[in-house]
Amino acid sequence: MFRRLMTFEEAKQVINEQLNLGVLGEEETPLLEAYNRVLGENVVSALDIPPFNRSTVDGYAVKAEDTFGAEENQPAKLATLGMVSVGEQPKIRVGKGETAEIVTGAPIPEGADAVVMVEDTDKTGFELRVFRAVTRDENVMKRGADIKKGETVLKAGQVLGASEIGVLAALGLTKVQVFKVPVVAVLSTGAEVTEPGKELPDGKIYDINAYSLSTAVRESGGKPVYLGVVPDDKAELRKALKHALASADMVLTSGGVSVGPKDFTPQIVNSLGEPGVFISGIAVKPGKPTTVALIGKKPVFSLPGHPTSALLQFHLLARPILQLMSGRSATEVKTVKALAVARMFSAKGRRTFVMVKLKRDKSNRRVVESVETGASGAISTLAKADGFVEIPENHQFIDAGEEVVVTLLKGAL
Amino acid sequence: MFRRLMTFEEAKQVINEQLNLGVLGEEETPLLEAYNRVLGENVVSALDIPPFNRSTVDGYAVKAEDTFGAEENQPAKLATLGMVSVGEQPKIRVGKGETAEIVTGAPIPEGADAVVMVEDTDKTGFELRVFRAVTRDENVMKRGADIKKGETVLKAGQVLGASEIGVLAALGLTKVQVFKVPVVAVLSTGAEVTEPGKELPDGKIYDINAYSLSTAVRESGGKPVYLGVVPDDKAELRKALKHALASADMVLTSGGVSVGPKDFTPQIVNSLGEPGVFISGIAVKPGKPTTVALIGKKPVFSLPGHPTSALLQFHLLARPILQLMSGRSATEVKTVKALAVARMFSAKGRRTFVMVKLKRDKSNRRVVESVETGASGAISTLAKADGFVEIPENHQFIDAGEEVVVTLLKGAL
Repeated sequence: MFRRLMTFEEAKQVINEQLNLGVLGEEETPLLEAYNRVLGENVVSALDIPPFNRSTVDGYAVKAEDTFGAEENQPAKLATLGMVSVGEQPKIRVGKGETAEIVTGAPIPEGADAVVMVEDTDKTGFELRVFRAVTRDENVMKRGADIKKGETVLKAGQVLGASEIGVLAALGLTKVQVFKVPVVAVLSTGAEVTEPGKELPDGKIYDINAYSLSTAVRESGGKPVYLGVVPDDKAELRKALKHALASADMVLTSGGVSVGPKDFTPQIVNSLGEPGVFISGIAVKPGKPTTVALIGKKPVFSLPGHPTSALLQFHLLARPILQLMSGRSATEVKTVKALAVARMFSAKGRRTFVMVKLKRDKSNRRVVESVETGASGAISTLAKADGFVEIPENHQFIDAGEEVVVTLLKGAL
Repeated sequence: MFRRLMTFEEAKQVINEQLNLGVLGEEETPLLEAYNRVLGENVVSALDIPPFNRSTVDGYAVKAEDTFGAEENQPAKLATLGMVSVGEQPKIRVGKGETAEIVTGAPIPEGADAVVMVEDTDKTGFELRVFRAVTRDENVMKRGADIKKGETVLKAGQVLGASEIGVLAALGLTKVQVFKVPVVAVLSTGAEVTEPGKELPDGKIYDINAYSLSTAVRESGGKPVYLGVVPDDKAELRKALKHALASADMVLTSGGVSVGPKDFTPQIVNSLGEPGVFISGIAVKPGKPTTVALIGKKPVFSLPGHPTSALLQFHLLARPILQLMSGRSATEVKTVKALAVARMFSAKGRRTFVMVKLKRDKSNRRVVESVETGASGAISTLAKADGFVEIPENHQFIDAGEEVVVTLLKGAL
């Protein structure tokens, strides 16, 4: 068990090394349910698209050479055969000196190799006069011009949105292989918390973290399993953690990681399997007691009890791992620049994260002000914080008026 | 039935007037399932938080006046009574000259009104020496200091993320009133398209739009009902539209809105109820044939058949209405600035939307290039387009090197 308090950078590096676990495998999902899932394999087209030569305009299908030399004063004259519609194999065959009316999207009939636009023609009875020459393949989209059979259309790792799902539909698919969604068990510990929905005993407060972290898991593309508040008892906690490890791909606990006599979560986690706890405290503020373990192939993050600190450390440490396990290539964090309205201090020797609220000042400039995480209430902080500002270990403070980068906590995926 | 081709601005205005339908009502949802839902009512706290005066530090609960005058060289001496833990009603009563050990988060015992930090004390046997005076309420968070009973904590219309759901949990809630999710029926028309998953007949292509638009609905916070491809027949289309209107809050159709003899969707929509079609064509490119109707209280958007144009017009016209119906206060569109790599032309007299792909140039500047929506393939366009650039009616083109605003189509919610 690693005992030294790591720097934030060391912790990030060790987490990246120890928890480089890869994806959890693939599964098939209906294409209509695939929104925001991650493609689990390269998708190769089984067909040419379009599957036939098609007209890109409304007009007349012709043999291009029949129009050569045609001009305003010297139209080519062709015999009209009938009409080619969309959605059906043309029964017409265009011979020399012949033409067939055609609409956009319809298959080019046999014998024709170009389309004259309707505005360059004049039809009288069965005679079509063409006032402009076309070259071979003009106004024709050739079979396979959009996608060729055998072409790789989408790649494993792409997140499926409206466009990608449209592309898969175009290939005729109704199912798709996607990476499995990591299941994350979320539980809270601590003698002072009680589950929402239950009666509140004297001296207790309602647990926030199992709800907020479950939601953060969902927001990050994972599937939360809410395990609620575990009674403040070693045997119960051990049982709950074993259950969590058996039923999920990752475990998040919160509370019970500081130095009090009843804060035994890290010891119990460490006893549940190899390699065990590899980070036990990080030189950050807030979130110093955060511990990280790997039990078999399952990461366990023991986060602080303070709700905003727990969400922050989830965001900084657990979320990138969850996303790697989902097959999402990179953690995209959203940042905005803003001016500090007041001096923000760092904790000596610790990477400091100051929770902030974004505002506009009188000149409509984007500014941030600190949202206290200490003496002020847990809920006020949670409700107010839009994101955080990071202060390096070797900086004492950020001065009023300095430009800072704010990492947004909301809508992070 | 409105017949004049409207400008884009006119169309937006008429849509805002005609389709200002409000939300669909509220429903209760479990808090754990409430991620990304919209709060349907103001939430008022039924309790004080914290529900008791609590210590914000580890230390000793005292009567503040017992420490007055205490200094490094002249400590106050108090008799220790025992320990107050978190999560339980203290049994100890602190009298004059007495103190009780207390941990962060524990209730202040009766008789005490302040907490001395442990580092300002020294304990020997049952005697505590206090080296620093505290004032009344020092290191104490008072009952209700975070949230007062009766206080409005969250407001109707707020979108529920990890923080908001944490706040609701703090109030002891496990359920929450949210606005109903609009149900949107999506169907495709057109003789040339066949449903993915079926065999592809000669002369047909697979339908993209029912899939891409269903996904766009989901991405915008609606619930899609996929109705697939409706056979190219008036009676069948009429039946499908009646079914769609009966089973959904909004209907999206695509294809079948241009001038061909089989493009009868708008006429049928118009016959299904009052007030009927109120926009029949818009001076935009692409998407000119777009029609918009209101049948009873249900908006019907008939979008173009071209997949990118359909998604674009959904984004421009239908999505804001869908979001209003969801109770989301405003459509937040994501935009980025970039330089045009080549000249982009507008269609004369029409508001032009050029589908573009974002890239980085050699100097790592963000640039955009046009993704052709005309002759090039539907799928290539769909796969490549990151967003669009808007060119006003009175502009002929955007020049190479000009800075443009790109509205992103992906991850729009």
